[in-house]
Amino acid sequence: MNMHPAAIVGASGYTGLELTRLLARHPRLRLAALYSDRWAGELAGARLPLGGPAAALAYRALAEAAEADAEVVFLATPAEVSADLAPRLLARGARVVDLSGAFRLEDPALYPAWYGFSHPAPALLAEARYGLPELARARLAGARLVTNPGCYATAIALAVAPLVKAGLGLAGGIAVTGLSGVSGAGRRASEDYSFVEVADDLRAYRIGKHQHVPEIEQTVARYAGACGAISFTPILTPIRRGILATVAVRAEGAAPDLAEAVRAAYRDEPFVSVLAPDRVALKDVLHTNRCHLGVAVDARAGTVVAVSAIDNLVKGAAGQAVQALNAAMQWPETTGLDLLGG
Amino acid sequence: MNMHPAAIVGASGYTGLELTRLLARHPRLRLAALYSDRWAGELAGARLPLGGPAAALAYRALAEAAEADAEVVFLATPAEVSADLAPRLLARGARVVDLSGAFRLEDPALYPAWYGFSHPAPALLAEARYGLPELARARLAGARLVTNPGCYATAIALAVAPLVKAGLGLAGGIAVTGLSGVSGAGRRASEDYSFVEVADDLRAYRIGKHQHVPEIEQTVARYAGACGAISFTPILTPIRRGILATVAVRAEGAAPDLAEAVRAAYRDEPFVSVLAPDRVALKDVLHTNRCHLGVAVDARAGTVVAVSAIDNLVKGAAGQAVQALNAAMQWPETTGLDLLGG
Amino acid sequence: MNMHPAAIVGASGYTGLELTRLLARHPRLRLAALYSDRWAGELAGARLPLGGPAAALAYRALAEAAEADAEVVFLATPAEVSADLAPRLLARGARVVDLSGAFRLEDPALYPAWYGFSHPAPALLAEARYGLPELARARLAGARLVTNPGCYATAIALAVAPLVKAGLGLAGGIAVTGLSGVSGAGRRASEDYSFVEVADDLRAYRIGKHQHVPEIEQTVARYAGACGAISFTPILTPIRRGILATVAVRAEGAAPDLAEAVRAAYRDEPFVSVLAPDRVALKDVLHTNRCHLGVAVDARAGTVVAVSAIDNLVKGAAGQAVQALNAAMQWPETTGLDLLGG
Amino acid sequence: MNMHPAAIVGASGYTGLELTRLLARHPRLRLAALYSDRWAGELAGARLPLGGPAAALAYRALAEAAEADAEVVFLATPAEVSADLAPRLLARGARVVDLSGAFRLEDPALYPAWYGFSHPAPALLAEARYGLPELARARLAGARLVTNPGCYATAIALAVAPLVKAGLGLAGGIAVTGLSGVSGAGRRASEDYSFVEVADDLRAYRIGKHQHVPEIEQTVARYAGACGAISFTPILTPIRRGILATVAVRAEGAAPDLAEAVRAAYRDEPFVSVLAPDRVALKDVLHTNRCHLGVAVDARAGTVVAVSAIDNLVKGAAGQAVQALNAAMQWPETTGLDLLGG
Repeated sequence: MNMHPAAIVGASGYTGLELTRLLARHPRLRLAALYSDRWAGELAGARLPLGGPAAALAYRALAEAAEADAEVVFLATPAEVSADLAPRLLARGARVVDLSGAFRLEDPALYPAWYGFSHPAPALLAEARYGLPELARARLAGARLVTNPGCYATAIALAVAPLVKAGLGLAGGIAVTGLSGVSGAGRRASEDYSFVEVADDLRAYRIGKHQHVPEIEQTVARYAGACGAISFTPILTPIRRGILATVAVRAEGAAPDLAEAVRAAYRDEPFVSVLAPDRVALKDVLHTNRCHLGVAVDARAGTVVAVSAIDNLVKGAAGQAVQALNAAMQWPETTGLDLLGG
Repeated sequence: MNMHPAAIVGASGYTGLELTRLLARHPRLRLAALYSDRWAGELAGARLPLGGPAAALAYRALAEAAEADAEVVFLATPAEVSADLAPRLLARGARVVDLSGAFRLEDPALYPAWYGFSHPAPALLAEARYGLPELARARLAGARLVTNPGCYATAIALAVAPLVKAGLGLAGGIAVTGLSGVSGAGRRASEDYSFVEVADDLRAYRIGKHQHVPEIEQTVARYAGACGAISFTPILTPIRRGILATVAVRAEGAAPDLAEAVRAAYRDEPFVSVLAPDRVALKDVLHTNRCHLGVAVDARAGTVVAVSAIDNLVKGAAGQAVQALNAAMQWPETTGLDLLGG
Repeated sequence: MNMHPAAIVGASGYTGLELTRLLARHPRLRLAALYSDRWAGELAGARLPLGGPAAALAYRALAEAAEADAEVVFLATPAEVSADLAPRLLARGARVVDLSGAFRLEDPALYPAWYGFSHPAPALLAEARYGLPELARARLAGARLVTNPGCYATAIALAVAPLVKAGLGLAGGIAVTGLSGVSGAGRRASEDYSFVEVADDLRAYRIGKHQHVPEIEQTVARYAGACGAISFTPILTPIRRGILATVAVRAEGAAPDLAEAVRAAYRDEPFVSVLAPDRVALKDVLHTNRCHLGVAVDARAGTVVAVSAIDNLVKGAAGQAVQALNAAMQWPETTGLDLLGG
Repeated sequence: MNMHPAAIVGASGYTGLELTRLLARHPRLRLAALYSDRWAGELAGARLPLGGPAAALAYRALAEAAEADAEVVFLATPAEVSADLAPRLLARGARVVDLSGAFRLEDPALYPAWYGFSHPAPALLAEARYGLPELARARLAGARLVTNPGCYATAIALAVAPLVKAGLGLAGGIAVTGLSGVSGAGRRASEDYSFVEVADDLRAYRIGKHQHVPEIEQTVARYAGACGAISFTPILTPIRRGILATVAVRAEGAAPDLAEAVRAAYRDEPFVSVLAPDRVALKDVLHTNRCHLGVAVDARAGTVVAVSAIDNLVKGAAGQAVQALNAAMQWPETTGLDLLGG
């Protein structure tokens, strides 16, 4: 079978490492180049237990990434770096899957407030295709620039979208919490994310200000036609990886078959399962590209609560990037993705 | 100073152990008897690094607890056991602080649905005084039967009550999550709470059905005059102790000085501090009787989010029981309680 | 390719689950039957995200396992159950891989002291082939009864064997510690292994009395011709999976090229890597069938220290069972085993 | 009672925080000054739930510490800083308790190899009194400069000393492992000690090269008259605090009453308990100044194994510093130290 050469830029971060593992196993892709300043000059086989030709790849400096000769380039880089690299790589004819937030928001006016920078390539925002196949599959086939969803955005949009489509939450009042493992903060030296500060602790941060909020609202609105304002409280928890999100929406009047509506929305999806809400456990999705969802109707309180679990590094990043590329290439979406986990 | 003899029934559970530590240090109480079937016949000094006469106490069987001769008896027992023991101890003239749910709900009709049993002593429900001094101090002085609040109920009621008093949440739509450490489930052999099942995992349980819901609504309604229905999602997290709760309430119209209103409500409370919401961290309250609160106004989403952190075994159980007894005895509420933690 | 039907007895324990994952991916084996009393009657696809025909398998009661019709039967059962089942399955012509300790010790006289029972089928002990290919490959080809090594025994024997072969430790004085994750204790309801008791704790247990001690001495003696007595201190650590073992041996006289000797011993082994000792980290081998070893010469103290890391559920159990079966079937040993992990 | 003014230099590190807690409770000391560059200018009461006058202390810059006017100054600073500050503070007439390694080794010639610097004040090494009262009490009364032991050194020397005094380990071959929580590495931004790198992991480091090795040998030799060479393997474990050390020594010939000898050595010590070895659990000593020891005789292997558990921040640092100061001041050693923990 024809193997398509692929490069990873930012290969030594947690997302980049997960991507390396996935691409090394992918039956249609061949790892052709790895870029990482941290490990520049070292052999991939000295850092990871890779076999075959991938082991002989030497990490290259990020500065060389704009010249990558691969057919597909995955950018696991900060948003500013991606915003700079993507246009140059597209101009060379590469297909780009960007895992940062650089191209996630269609409206460039949102970038200063939520991301803290003015977008340098606003024309590309319209071209980028959002890589969450379950909610946005139609536009992915043939995509040249895939913008991979945020990890919280994935977990939350998958839970919120079918509820809104069923008529809930349009008047606002979608209260969301997202409990995240620490790898969501990336790989870095920081006292705030040191073991002693994080273990045995729970803390909320950036309440109402997380940059995934407009991304979720945009994704749900595209899927369901509209979306109320989301109030999002992220919480740091002492686990290495994974996200558990809860969504509470007022259910005025009856909500008889809500769980059934959510189940129907994902009936044919290989990576999404709708379970009884107390059967949704983060550990069942770790190391997989799966999302487990549950929906509870709290009739007494007039509220519907949905629970959503993903592995932030797989369905929330690297695995989803592979799934979205599969969709762009019109390969089966499960190609190279493990259903079973570790 | 006159030392009042005190007994602990259920002394080897996690709450009972914490109580033992606190009473051993309390300057007005003297440990007179410890009841535990698990350790019956063993010396307290062989199980815990107690000094002084407490070390020489032998644990006695629970069956003997109804005859306890102490002036104050703390019941750290299941609700059914407390419901049976409390009337007998009161009849002997003891003052009783019950840490179970047996006497928390004023309306006996609520017990079958939320606790799964018909209340055997409904007359006592009106006599019991709710031991959350910050919200219910007035009725505690001289109380003979103190019903100690639930751990979730403490964290959540302290956050919700001043918001409702400020006019929010009356029409319902109070969406609450409570992240709990595993000691909240008690000390027991259970595959569900084994290390391998809990570590690296997050899972919601009993959504909308936790027995602390009516307790919170009752407490807030007493304090603020009314309370909307609370939708509560408890979540098990891989920490040994502690609770972090989030409360999201619709804030129709403006909410200019909400954080200030909450701060004012607790200005003179030694155990409650209102901080910037991103400064509320569970680990700062561990091993203390403190509650740290934060209030964030998410104006864009029309929502107010409060965050509340306590140690479930101290402010959520044993420490609060001591604080409530102090109030009942009209001693300073901080007597025997450490502000600094470990 | 011809797919060989395989059965797993004890499929819902931690080892059985790991085996299920591995066999579902194995290119030469087909899952034909799963035995588990816990899940008897349920479909495998309802418990695990299996695809294909394996999802339609219903778990069967353990009592039916003696009639298993598979060509290969993996026993992930307690030693007494394995000792009963293995002869009956062999008599039906099945190939048996036993993951318990039932057949690990050649000398039946050792069973009462170390395992607490008299061996019911001593004749089989001579027939069983020890499934640690790196140290005992020669006897595995064609084996009908493979006895899979213990998890500690694997980590420790791989570290000790080449040191003894190099002439160390013959006079005794091999001091070993083994730090284990909690899944090593199996899946069960037990207060001792509850999250609250294990998290934040470290404790040694069964010092000098663990049943893997005679297994290690036997394995090393077969490989190196002799072995001094091993003093082994197992320690329970708050991690879900994995083992890190340290081995300290007196190095009388010079030990110039010890690390080199160990490296040479494993030069052609796909699953064993010898690294600088401070590069051996448990997390690098988790979810893989790998063993990472390091050797430090502490010349000042006249001691050699080796460090060894494995995943107790993979190289210490299920992965090694697959590797050993591969050797027995004369397939490449890496067949169906992932080098990369999760 | 006369309250003696005390200062803490390095008050915002993990040891400094623990000291702050302990001194705030100490009945003979009064917190007079806190030095920390991290929090310079902030009030202590804004960082910690301190009551009373201590809350009104403002942290001062480290550069001002040499002018501290306190009667007792605790240095929780790096060795180089302590080596510079201690002589200046002593010259001002202060009593100094140094928690770094700056004055632990009597022989200045050992500093370059083990600490990486030439000692700038070698004359002070003879004057410094080693602050491990259980093994070196005689020289502490009246000490002007107390050098507080290392955390590993405390746990290990308490286990090794009575064994050597009983005649073991003189010919070398004392194999020691030390499992440490992450706070032992101090408070700092470092990728190596980030949550994601440490959780779920175990790794050995600096085998045979840790700077506590000569300290242990010196302490044991002073106590027992001699000491064989110690081979020490430190291991980083995913817990916030605490040390569990294991010591394996060859026991040539019989070792009938070893546990009894160890028990006798510590019979009158309030902070050391000798338990059955499988009853030594780290969590029992957390947040206390206690050391729990166990001794197992592995007669088959001719080895004695001792296990030792302490809280690295209390008995391994701040608590021990208070205990040693108490000894220097000739107060009861338990003054201000909690036996019960949190």
